[in-house]
Amino acid sequence: MAKNSVGIVETKYFTFAQKESEYLELDSGRRFGPITIAYEIYGEMNLAKDNVVLICHALSGDAHVAGYYGEVGQKPGWWEDAIGPGKAIDTDKYFVVCSNVIGGCSGTTGPASIDPSTGNHYGSHFPVVTIGDMVKGEEALIRYLGIQKLLAVVGGSMGGMQAIEWALRYPDALLSAVVIASTSRLSPQSIAFDAVGRNAIISDKNWLNGNYYNKELPSNGLSIARMIGHITYLSDQSMHKKFGRRLQSKDQFSYDFSNEFQIESYLDYQGNKFVERFDANTYLYITKAMDYFDVAKVYGEGSLEKALEKVKARMLLLSFTSDWLFPPYQSKEMVDALLKHKKDVTYFNIESSYGHDAFLLEVERESEIIRKFLSATYEKFAGNKRA
Amino acid sequence: MAKNSVGIVETKYFTFAQKESEYLELDSGRRFGPITIAYEIYGEMNLAKDNVVLICHALSGDAHVAGYYGEVGQKPGWWEDAIGPGKAIDTDKYFVVCSNVIGGCSGTTGPASIDPSTGNHYGSHFPVVTIGDMVKGEEALIRYLGIQKLLAVVGGSMGGMQAIEWALRYPDALLSAVVIASTSRLSPQSIAFDAVGRNAIISDKNWLNGNYYNKELPSNGLSIARMIGHITYLSDQSMHKKFGRRLQSKDQFSYDFSNEFQIESYLDYQGNKFVERFDANTYLYITKAMDYFDVAKVYGEGSLEKALEKVKARMLLLSFTSDWLFPPYQSKEMVDALLKHKKDVTYFNIESSYGHDAFLLEVERESEIIRKFLSATYEKFAGNKRA
Repeated sequence: MAKNSVGIVETKYFTFAQKESEYLELDSGRRFGPITIAYEIYGEMNLAKDNVVLICHALSGDAHVAGYYGEVGQKPGWWEDAIGPGKAIDTDKYFVVCSNVIGGCSGTTGPASIDPSTGNHYGSHFPVVTIGDMVKGEEALIRYLGIQKLLAVVGGSMGGMQAIEWALRYPDALLSAVVIASTSRLSPQSIAFDAVGRNAIISDKNWLNGNYYNKELPSNGLSIARMIGHITYLSDQSMHKKFGRRLQSKDQFSYDFSNEFQIESYLDYQGNKFVERFDANTYLYITKAMDYFDVAKVYGEGSLEKALEKVKARMLLLSFTSDWLFPPYQSKEMVDALLKHKKDVTYFNIESSYGHDAFLLEVERESEIIRKFLSATYEKFAGNKRA
Repeated sequence: MAKNSVGIVETKYFTFAQKESEYLELDSGRRFGPITIAYEIYGEMNLAKDNVVLICHALSGDAHVAGYYGEVGQKPGWWEDAIGPGKAIDTDKYFVVCSNVIGGCSGTTGPASIDPSTGNHYGSHFPVVTIGDMVKGEEALIRYLGIQKLLAVVGGSMGGMQAIEWALRYPDALLSAVVIASTSRLSPQSIAFDAVGRNAIISDKNWLNGNYYNKELPSNGLSIARMIGHITYLSDQSMHKKFGRRLQSKDQFSYDFSNEFQIESYLDYQGNKFVERFDANTYLYITKAMDYFDVAKVYGEGSLEKALEKVKARMLLLSFTSDWLFPPYQSKEMVDALLKHKKDVTYFNIESSYGHDAFLLEVERESEIIRKFLSATYEKFAGNKRA
């Protein structure tokens, strides 16, 4: 087994909302079911069931946050650096759960799933879901696992939105939330990038109003959406360092339209790699859920301060100085609002040149902070030790 | 006639490089002709021919920089606010010339033009051109008009690149250059945005390897490219002011994939409007020319300082604090390099929230600076007054 890894893991499945009477009421008002949640677990739940950490994934993530499928040494889970024995989220101490979001394409019910009422893929008939709906799915899973109160909900980017949503929707169901490189609502600029990505998918000739399954996929559109995304995940500074204006193979311009700058090849590669593993419709649904996310609107009648008054969890917020997708000021707004209500909040704006991607790259700096925060929460507040 | 307008104007045409022996040698090494340049002129050339100001346009601009076609009150030229009797570039004093760039789609020879050797549109057979090649075309026009020395070459964004190129390629042919919201080379981030835009066009099913003329146009791809462009022309701050997270028509989410945020409708509108007037292939060629632009590489063996040593013109550089496409640091780099050689350089970093678009919007603040700079150049250096 790889050192400090949870080792070989497998994805599990849980299905709920199976009968029409049990359908999940979505934020749109539509009732929907059945819903299967793909999830993974690592570590051991203790008898008091007070050592449970829920990890929430970002746009392109999945339930496979740590360990390896089939064989150690293969591509590990997406946050392998942070989760495992002795790591920041220490599986020797904590029982870790991670699930794929509703609307996703990695095992949980989403637009690529088969609609049992028709026998066809949902496609565009899949309901529009929100971050709140994703969290309802996670809550159903947590209840199913017999857990009353989570030690922490942890997530970066869209995962951080879920952590915030947990703290507002189920304030008594978690002791703490760790919100990394996230926001209480997207800026118009971020909505704009999402909208253009969706436009690229929808105008791909293969999209066919979302009913492309078993046909040619709208890969061009999804690839373009992903390229746009990648630009926003990096920073000007990190692009200078990583690519500069360097050409692919020589110093002379080719005077044609091939990918000659290294940054062009990088984006092309990222776009092509993404379409192999991700569903275009899921990209539409998940970006829409992010655009809709607006804590002030949903919980505070337009006021972030009013919304965050509902928080009971200890909050840890981390932002990164060069993140221009969810810039530090958006974290600071939340911190200020929480402090107005004298909430238990800790905030670090971490110096980094990696842009939004820093939340997956600055693991060492994050790790120490998260380790201490979880540990203090567990020691002081979990189970019987709770005040 | 509208007050302070040059009034009704018309586009003129000039053709050169007609015989194979006179073909223009492009920076790629390819020889190309014939080339027709579309241009407009305003004001009167004086007898000394020392009052000529050449305006260079940006990506989506054209020769029609001031006045009206057909009827005053119609949509004016793209910099009507700055050019006219009594305005910053005062047509009572100066003779103003503006031409469409080579590779363009507004009268000058470009990929949509007919290749006389085949009788078909050039399409992808059009040669890749550079900012240097565009400037060679402008120089041919200026010679044709009998002008030995320009009072000033003025441009914003890609127009500013042309002004810099003029100062390096023909250092004795201009007394001054006005470089607004521009750069000596694109950052990898800007190249990345261009590359994704080109990708969107090239993967449009109607692009047909560039041979779509007289068929369905690759409008979806071009529209997406333009939307990406518009995001980069605004700033996060100006988007907050202009659109915020406001919805189109009501306060409730529609829970579908329509354009419900105002920013989505804005981008959609800009995309649709653009495809009515702009050629997709020109978008490919012009963005490529911008990506290639690299003063240090072409003129300084990699050193910007070395490259700018060749400048003889008085230089005025303007940047805008919120411009993140061609950020102020890129202007400052040029200013520093020019100052190292004790060149005559004036620089203003103008406080503005409008982002890159500021160069077309902050006309009042620009105007005073440009007016004084041109006037001083004319009074002190033009014609007989030259030292």
